[in-house]
Amino acid sequence: MGVTDQTFQEISPADFFYRNKEIAGFSNPARAIFSAIRELVENSLDATEPLGILPDIYIRLSSLNEGEDENIYVLRVRDNGSGIPVDYVPLAFCQFLFSSKYKLKQSRGTFGLGGTMTILYGQITTNKPVKVISSTGGQKIYEYVLMIDIERNRPVILERRIYNNDSKWHGTIVEVNLEGDYFKAMPKILEYLKQTAIVNPYANIMFIDPKGRLYKFERTVSVLPPPPKETLPHPHGVDVETIYRIIRVTKCGTLLSFMQEHFHRVGKRIAQRFLEFAGFPEDADPKKLKPEEIVRFVQAMKSFNGFLPPDADSLSPLGEEILRAGILKELEPEFVAVTQRKPSAYSGHPFIVEVGIAYGGKISSGEDIILYRFANKIPLVYDESGDVSWRIIKSINWRKYGLMPGMPFAVLVHICSTKVPWKTVGKEIIADRPEVSREILNGIREVARQLSIYLARKEKIKRERARLSIFAKYLPKIAELSTKLTGKEKVPNINDLLRRAKKFEED
Amino acid sequence: MGVTDQTFQEISPADFFYRNKEIAGFSNPARAIFSAIRELVENSLDATEPLGILPDIYIRLSSLNEGEDENIYVLRVRDNGSGIPVDYVPLAFCQFLFSSKYKLKQSRGTFGLGGTMTILYGQITTNKPVKVISSTGGQKIYEYVLMIDIERNRPVILERRIYNNDSKWHGTIVEVNLEGDYFKAMPKILEYLKQTAIVNPYANIMFIDPKGRLYKFERTVSVLPPPPKETLPHPHGVDVETIYRIIRVTKCGTLLSFMQEHFHRVGKRIAQRFLEFAGFPEDADPKKLKPEEIVRFVQAMKSFNGFLPPDADSLSPLGEEILRAGILKELEPEFVAVTQRKPSAYSGHPFIVEVGIAYGGKISSGEDIILYRFANKIPLVYDESGDVSWRIIKSINWRKYGLMPGMPFAVLVHICSTKVPWKTVGKEIIADRPEVSREILNGIREVARQLSIYLARKEKIKRERARLSIFAKYLPKIAELSTKLTGKEKVPNINDLLRRAKKFEED
Repeated sequence: MGVTDQTFQEISPADFFYRNKEIAGFSNPARAIFSAIRELVENSLDATEPLGILPDIYIRLSSLNEGEDENIYVLRVRDNGSGIPVDYVPLAFCQFLFSSKYKLKQSRGTFGLGGTMTILYGQITTNKPVKVISSTGGQKIYEYVLMIDIERNRPVILERRIYNNDSKWHGTIVEVNLEGDYFKAMPKILEYLKQTAIVNPYANIMFIDPKGRLYKFERTVSVLPPPPKETLPHPHGVDVETIYRIIRVTKCGTLLSFMQEHFHRVGKRIAQRFLEFAGFPEDADPKKLKPEEIVRFVQAMKSFNGFLPPDADSLSPLGEEILRAGILKELEPEFVAVTQRKPSAYSGHPFIVEVGIAYGGKISSGEDIILYRFANKIPLVYDESGDVSWRIIKSINWRKYGLMPGMPFAVLVHICSTKVPWKTVGKEIIADRPEVSREILNGIREVARQLSIYLARKEKIKRERARLSIFAKYLPKIAELSTKLTGKEKVPNINDLLRRAKKFEED
Repeated sequence: MGVTDQTFQEISPADFFYRNKEIAGFSNPARAIFSAIRELVENSLDATEPLGILPDIYIRLSSLNEGEDENIYVLRVRDNGSGIPVDYVPLAFCQFLFSSKYKLKQSRGTFGLGGTMTILYGQITTNKPVKVISSTGGQKIYEYVLMIDIERNRPVILERRIYNNDSKWHGTIVEVNLEGDYFKAMPKILEYLKQTAIVNPYANIMFIDPKGRLYKFERTVSVLPPPPKETLPHPHGVDVETIYRIIRVTKCGTLLSFMQEHFHRVGKRIAQRFLEFAGFPEDADPKKLKPEEIVRFVQAMKSFNGFLPPDADSLSPLGEEILRAGILKELEPEFVAVTQRKPSAYSGHPFIVEVGIAYGGKISSGEDIILYRFANKIPLVYDESGDVSWRIIKSINWRKYGLMPGMPFAVLVHICSTKVPWKTVGKEIIADRPEVSREILNGIREVARQLSIYLARKEKIKRERARLSIFAKYLPKIAELSTKLTGKEKVPNINDLLRRAKKFEED
């Protein structure tokens, strides 16, 4: 019965993502070349900005066989980031689920597999190894030529070279061969780079495309947002597994110290009040908790109201100034309003929503409202209709703000969090969490009101101008006529009258 | 410089999905209980139907603490499937990326992680082990009590019991404790079960909810769709990695036999023509191909037009009869039309689209068109707006078919494939592949035309009835009047006249 058909098989994480590359954004040649650029650029940004380095990122995509119809490209991305310690290079690039990003702080990467996914895709389409050159700024620069053993999820080192680093250069260069369809992907790639420049105006980004065209996004601000700090787990977001992991490593002998040592914003008094609420003695040994006690402990953590909300130290929002600068630089609008919402949290994960609205300038008016979506300073350019921000945009009664689709305005939503609620591994769609959507909605309302005031004022000025121009046109004629009719010789001075008719200053 | 902030870490596949459980559909207590039921039901369906067993599935969800506000449930799912060989039980349930589903044929599961994900979620929310009872129909029934070592991705066997199996029972029972929010998830769960019954009308499904309410979906057809057969990879979908894997195990000494032995629908003549096209000698040894030759080989496989399209042996569509039966059973419409499109392929993956349209009966008329989406006989009840079928539904000019949103009709789209183009690991959204969307569009057009004809006919009959009822009302009076006016005694027989006025049979 049945057993015949059931052959079981164990596959490696590399094999899993090889078989399911679509879910990581590598579904076809066009999408793959987009994702490859995106993943490497985001790795470069993560290797610079959070470490206090103003990013210089240089992207070159060249065609291997100009003129032929095969679509094989070489993608080279160079950054001035921190570089990768020599021994970690093969693992960081050619082993799935090996990463520096599995931490409780905001970063662009969260799954720790975008770079490796890009290399895997290059390998299975071109059979060529990846070249990685990196230095952390020490005496040497290391160059590796690597492949992935997909069935075993291990890096294969083909070559390794060492150069002197006299200039103390630090950074990373990745050069990968891959199949792609650049011309189909081009609009999305350029849009992605433009929007990256909007939320990273402190970065220099250069892109040379296969036709040799240069796209330059230049730094306009030289201050970086405050870097995120690694944080402790918030009690509201903790599950049984987390508690076990902490218990395994803790040196605390009492629950009182355990609470203070391992959880976010728990001081002595809060720890005491929590333990009383949960019904555990302060001096109980955490290592001696029984399985059912641990469940009770976690349940109490979820339901206790006395914990402080997560603070925003682990986050690195843009701030209103940088956001405004980015919008002004790329969209050159006639009006812009931005707002940063207060830090908030969902299931123990802190987040901040930043919202902007821009009107006029380079913004074209289309059928639908233009929405720019960002998460942890990444622009999201695919799958808009599934995203929480799109749903909110659609739910707003824009007429209330004197706005409607078709007018040249754009809304920008940026969510940053230690845990962005991604729906997909390809990081394109953000799920609908009530706490997050409330902040987005309120943020949009706030900037929409400001635009509404601006437009009302602009409309008034326009009407006023029209009124004044009528005055200015007819008043002299009326004055002349009245002069004639009354037989007076001198036409009265009407400038004073005109001035008094001006109700608004136009500055 | 920088290195301070870069601590690298390797995590296990279990740990990856533990950290990212949202992407697999376990984002909150309501969604989690939905996903838990769904994953276990789909495992049960995959353990029965493809093996020729008419599914009997019994689902019981009970609350552990009636009356209290904690949401801990026990979910028990029992099937009469093939059962799992005793030695595989711990791995199949408690190790990620260990599965019987990594094969080239249609099945509901593809990622091979839904069941394990459910158990993991139960464990991290309740700290309780899972109980699995299974038998393949032999002498014994095995009962395991298991947990997952998440950091190491290994099963932990807590207990193992053996019972005699005198009745030769085969099947599997899974009992898992988990946190959830059943009452919030209830509408989606019931919708899911109803739709599962639509596309699996050969299944008996019973569900007892925490309030003790029984939902019964009874078998209405006793024929199963033809089971899918495992297939060879189609040359158009092959990449370099696949070729390497085949070369490693092949016993073929020449490319000519290699092509015929390992690829889908490649006979001798096609193999010869392909090798000529690709420029490889027929007697070349596949094991001696150089890396760049393998790339050329794969490129040629993609561009060669002489391969046969994939056949549908690896697929198990419902067929028009079963589909119609399912729709009639659950929606009881006054009209139904179904169509099965011819097998087609995208990137070497065969697929079949089945479409249905139903009008009236239990279908309510809402603001939007009602769309039922299915893939490999799974209903998709979340995230409709991101799905390819929704986009197509929205793009159709329904007035052309005398239809508009608000009328009581529903469209049903079923895609089956060895590789459904999922956008998410949670299997809710299907990506937009041109080959697939063309078939969906044409399928919908076909059934919409049939409904359009039905409605036009119905409208005509209605008008005709109205016309006849006027005749029937006034003709006797006119006859009577004329009789009087002409002074005749006998009113003429008008039945014949009335009969001739009937233009349509009403049967």
